[in-house]
Amino acid sequence: MTDLCYLDCTRKLLAARPRLYPQFATHNALTVASIIEDASGAGGYEFQRLHGMGEALYDALFAELPDITCRVYAPVGDYSDLLAYLVRRLLENGANSSFVSVAADPAVPIETILRRPQSWIVDQSHARHSHIPLPRDLFGAVRRNSGGIEFGDRASFDALLREVRAAPQSIQARPLIDGVAVAGRQRTINSPIDGKPVGTVEEGDKAIISASLAAAEAAFPAWNATPVADRAALLERAGDLIEQNRAPLIALLQNEGGKTIDDCVAEVREAADHCRYYAGEARRTLVRRTLPGPTGESNELCYRGRGIFICISPWNFPLAIFIGQIAGALAAGNCIVAKPAEQTPLIAFEAVKLLHLAGVPVGALHLVPGDGNIGAMLTADQRIAGVAFTGSTEVARTINRVLAAKDGPIAPLIAETGGINAMIVDATALPEQVTDDVLASAFRSAGQRCSALRLLCVQDDVANCVLDMVAGAVRELKLGDPRDPATHIGPVIDAESRERLGRWVAAMDSRGAVLFRAGAAPTGGGTYVAPTIVELDNARELKEEVFGPILHVVRWRADRFDRMLDDVASNGTALTLGVHSRIEATVARITARLANGNVYVNRNMIGAVVGSQPFGGSGLSGTGPKAGGPNYLHRLAVEQVVTVNTAASGGDAILLSGDE
Amino acid sequence: MTDLCYLDCTRKLLAARPRLYPQFATHNALTVASIIEDASGAGGYEFQRLHGMGEALYDALFAELPDITCRVYAPVGDYSDLLAYLVRRLLENGANSSFVSVAADPAVPIETILRRPQSWIVDQSHARHSHIPLPRDLFGAVRRNSGGIEFGDRASFDALLREVRAAPQSIQARPLIDGVAVAGRQRTINSPIDGKPVGTVEEGDKAIISASLAAAEAAFPAWNATPVADRAALLERAGDLIEQNRAPLIALLQNEGGKTIDDCVAEVREAADHCRYYAGEARRTLVRRTLPGPTGESNELCYRGRGIFICISPWNFPLAIFIGQIAGALAAGNCIVAKPAEQTPLIAFEAVKLLHLAGVPVGALHLVPGDGNIGAMLTADQRIAGVAFTGSTEVARTINRVLAAKDGPIAPLIAETGGINAMIVDATALPEQVTDDVLASAFRSAGQRCSALRLLCVQDDVANCVLDMVAGAVRELKLGDPRDPATHIGPVIDAESRERLGRWVAAMDSRGAVLFRAGAAPTGGGTYVAPTIVELDNARELKEEVFGPILHVVRWRADRFDRMLDDVASNGTALTLGVHSRIEATVARITARLANGNVYVNRNMIGAVVGSQPFGGSGLSGTGPKAGGPNYLHRLAVEQVVTVNTAASGGDAILLSGDE
Repeated sequence: MTDLCYLDCTRKLLAARPRLYPQFATHNALTVASIIEDASGAGGYEFQRLHGMGEALYDALFAELPDITCRVYAPVGDYSDLLAYLVRRLLENGANSSFVSVAADPAVPIETILRRPQSWIVDQSHARHSHIPLPRDLFGAVRRNSGGIEFGDRASFDALLREVRAAPQSIQARPLIDGVAVAGRQRTINSPIDGKPVGTVEEGDKAIISASLAAAEAAFPAWNATPVADRAALLERAGDLIEQNRAPLIALLQNEGGKTIDDCVAEVREAADHCRYYAGEARRTLVRRTLPGPTGESNELCYRGRGIFICISPWNFPLAIFIGQIAGALAAGNCIVAKPAEQTPLIAFEAVKLLHLAGVPVGALHLVPGDGNIGAMLTADQRIAGVAFTGSTEVARTINRVLAAKDGPIAPLIAETGGINAMIVDATALPEQVTDDVLASAFRSAGQRCSALRLLCVQDDVANCVLDMVAGAVRELKLGDPRDPATHIGPVIDAESRERLGRWVAAMDSRGAVLFRAGAAPTGGGTYVAPTIVELDNARELKEEVFGPILHVVRWRADRFDRMLDDVASNGTALTLGVHSRIEATVARITARLANGNVYVNRNMIGAVVGSQPFGGSGLSGTGPKAGGPNYLHRLAVEQVVTVNTAASGGDAILLSGDE
Repeated sequence: MTDLCYLDCTRKLLAARPRLYPQFATHNALTVASIIEDASGAGGYEFQRLHGMGEALYDALFAELPDITCRVYAPVGDYSDLLAYLVRRLLENGANSSFVSVAADPAVPIETILRRPQSWIVDQSHARHSHIPLPRDLFGAVRRNSGGIEFGDRASFDALLREVRAAPQSIQARPLIDGVAVAGRQRTINSPIDGKPVGTVEEGDKAIISASLAAAEAAFPAWNATPVADRAALLERAGDLIEQNRAPLIALLQNEGGKTIDDCVAEVREAADHCRYYAGEARRTLVRRTLPGPTGESNELCYRGRGIFICISPWNFPLAIFIGQIAGALAAGNCIVAKPAEQTPLIAFEAVKLLHLAGVPVGALHLVPGDGNIGAMLTADQRIAGVAFTGSTEVARTINRVLAAKDGPIAPLIAETGGINAMIVDATALPEQVTDDVLASAFRSAGQRCSALRLLCVQDDVANCVLDMVAGAVRELKLGDPRDPATHIGPVIDAESRERLGRWVAAMDSRGAVLFRAGAAPTGGGTYVAPTIVELDNARELKEEVFGPILHVVRWRADRFDRMLDDVASNGTALTLGVHSRIEATVARITARLANGNVYVNRNMIGAVVGSQPFGGSGLSGTGPKAGGPNYLHRLAVEQVVTVNTAASGGDAILLSGDE
């Protein structure tokens, strides 16, 4: 297939002559022959060969076609430039399918070597490798994967942008109790992009909270008694509706959340994936199950909802985490009062409407927008059965104490909090790849992900080279309006966040610790923070999660490897961890020492995918179980075992009918 | 097989003539013929037949053998007596294998009817039904079931009693840190049977606690890194050692815990089952698991221990629950400081020694005996990662608040507390069976089980009959020294418990609510409480768990069924629930309304078996997950997902090697 694609490209290039002057670097006789044939005798192109290779091929060619042009080239550079180049050449030439490796083999007949690629494939039905699923089929029959978009395909990308621009640009959100919008204290929501209003929210109060809990309590028996399969089907419908409403949801994620288009597409996908994943998990893990035991009795384990769950979600994933918490709690049979982040109630309002539209009973899901006080009042109520919370460690601790202070049953708290996430880079890592992954991990989403890289730990032997490359790449990042597809970094969420980050950078600057700052942030109504790199002496100096586009770096010496790991562990968080190393033993040593919930090796450390990378940490980073993982739903349910003396009705029917 | 056994019994009875005068009630011609042959022409026995049945058979017999005696009988009684009798007869005669159902069928050849039982079975290899496993094989290849004892087999029972009597009668227990017994403040343990000393315990203090936690912390990395399979193997060895040491463990359970012999055998079994079950569960649920995802990366979910777990266990199952908590926490990779109940440190000391003997590293399991203050100090320490607790709702709440008050990570608490457990009996229930199950549920173990029946709810139509029968049966229970195999009810755990129960009965008595009291309790050094039945007007009157041999009863009217269920639910506990009814719809209605963790239908409601009846409730009865159930271990572990970019080393090997 690679050869066929290559030849298709050669034809496109040859057709573009004389505007293009194609140069074909190949040592493959069949490729050379195909190009000469496709060139139809005309010039305007050349071949190239590596000095010292392909001589016999081109000598034979010149003997027959002296007009053919071939440039002989030789790579020039120092050791570090050429090593990767040579390895790539070795891999290519060493591959079993390589022309070079079989051309000189007398055991391989010339017909095999010269067999055209299309004759291997025969027809279109063989064009696709049967063992490689399409993206939507990645998870087999269990669930459909959410649909992405090919950003390089101009037509579909432009179509998406048009749909996004056509979406409603102003939303009026209200508390939703039993599906009815009720009136509250009104507040305007301004965009972090430019400070302009994007809608209004009416917020909850004591009476609205009480009404929402009473409604949820009343609806619980019926929702809890709804068969698991029916609950799962509703969630799958919700996943479909979310994908169908991608454009208006993206518009809101941009206007209200200040997100770039790639982040928005990923977030809509994650929201749909959550719905479908928990639907599948409910079918897999919450169904009635027979337990082994002696004859004469039956033992069945089943699961029931706990009651009212309070879902308190953050502004940084105002759709994906909001939906994820709700979908999980609904799947397990709970009724929900959802309290979105103060900054992002509009998208929450739209999301709840979609869930109701999908068929989730209005009694099973209520929305109460508001600030932290609303969350505190909800969690303090005696009627609630549990809380799912994503946000700061401090707020999680406060909720835990509020729950513990009550006299009722001990209520579960599923808290997913932050982390001072490190990436450990040793001297064997590829600097270019490290740079790519540092940029994505530290600066994408303006560093406003729980998973974002905060602390880059580079082995001192390669630190200068890696940090120079990272700083150079950061300089190229475009900071600005995220609705412009060329923008890499949008605004931080609000002025409070911008001021906090500004104070942090100023403090680091006064210590002389700022290694690099990428120009000035845009001024005007938006809340922008320029990406910054801060160098510290030791990982222990970073004691707080700096939630923005600020990367801290430390250098470590190979002979103090274990001490460096202890330093990284010392802050007590354990969320994400990046590792860049070519040595498997080093990777194993790091993952054994650090209990971080999500470890990423030789790649970026953000963008956990539902079901593939269940997300969440331990220690100060959260309680578990991991969101989007196989153990999530059981924590939201209670277990019941029903034991029946099946012999009580007059005998053991199993024994009577137990033929041998 | 039934026919063969019957004939074997007839031969034994005939051989015992003339001391016995056997009477054979049968309508089966082959049985009659076999008995006449075995009787060898001598008399001293008779046949019986039901009036109106078997006439043709016996008429034919008398025609040939006029000396044979046959008594004709007829059951006499009222409707309620005879209904069950008639149903039994119908079931017998209606069975396909019944002689009566085929004798009159001309299609069945006489050879088939008269085929001797032994000719169906042929030889010993067919004596056992191939689909019915032996008790030890109930759980298949996953784990061996613990061994019981046949109490009716005099020889093996006597052998057990001899072994128990030969066991050491005095134990000196001490804190165990890193396997070393350290000195503490000494206290004498007196038996609840007679108040006589059965050993001494030295208890922990602040310094011992601190040393135990430091030792556990130091041992954690190595134990956490021990492969799951190795940890499981150690636990299985511990299960074997527990069974091998059954007799000395029973002696301690009796002397220190005041338990009857049947309770002791069951408790040793449960302890061994816990070890083997969690070993199997660790292998099943804690192993590394590949998650689905796109090609070019690998995603693996693994589990790690949380750190130091504090296991605080109760005196009522001082071996089974003590071992169960520890086995679960060890299986998941945690190091443990175990704090047994103040009343039962001796057996805990012996149990820890057995676990160490089985190979559990001394650093992974430490013992600190003491009272509630020791438990409070342990749970308040910053170093601990979680608590497993079984005991009262109040203490669980206190522990939860102590944990929440700390500033570290949010630590999990697995609490299994009590319940005001109801049994609901409707008019279709069989009174004899209800009586058996009420006696076992309310009075066995002197009512000192979390699962014990506290509140019997009987439909008023049958209440007088059922309560008369229950009271009559309670009158026959023997209260006294549990080392006497004839004893049904031993002492309560201590004088404090006896006084509390005495005050409760006195208060009920002063209200005229005591329906029945079974004589006086033995006096002397023991702490005995006579079984008592208290009648209340409404289930809501019972607001506390009365932890002893005191049964409360209420009557309910069929037209107030739902209100009765609400009354039962109103106390907020949800541990065990008994249901006696012949109507499946009623059973379904009750289990749908009441979320109790363990529901038992038409049987007693105690004695949950590990793996078959995972144990634990919700609401005020505990946090879950259920002990001895499939979701227990995950709560004791943290999850880690490791994602590797497998293409980073130069290409996607899966794609290159992906043959079609």
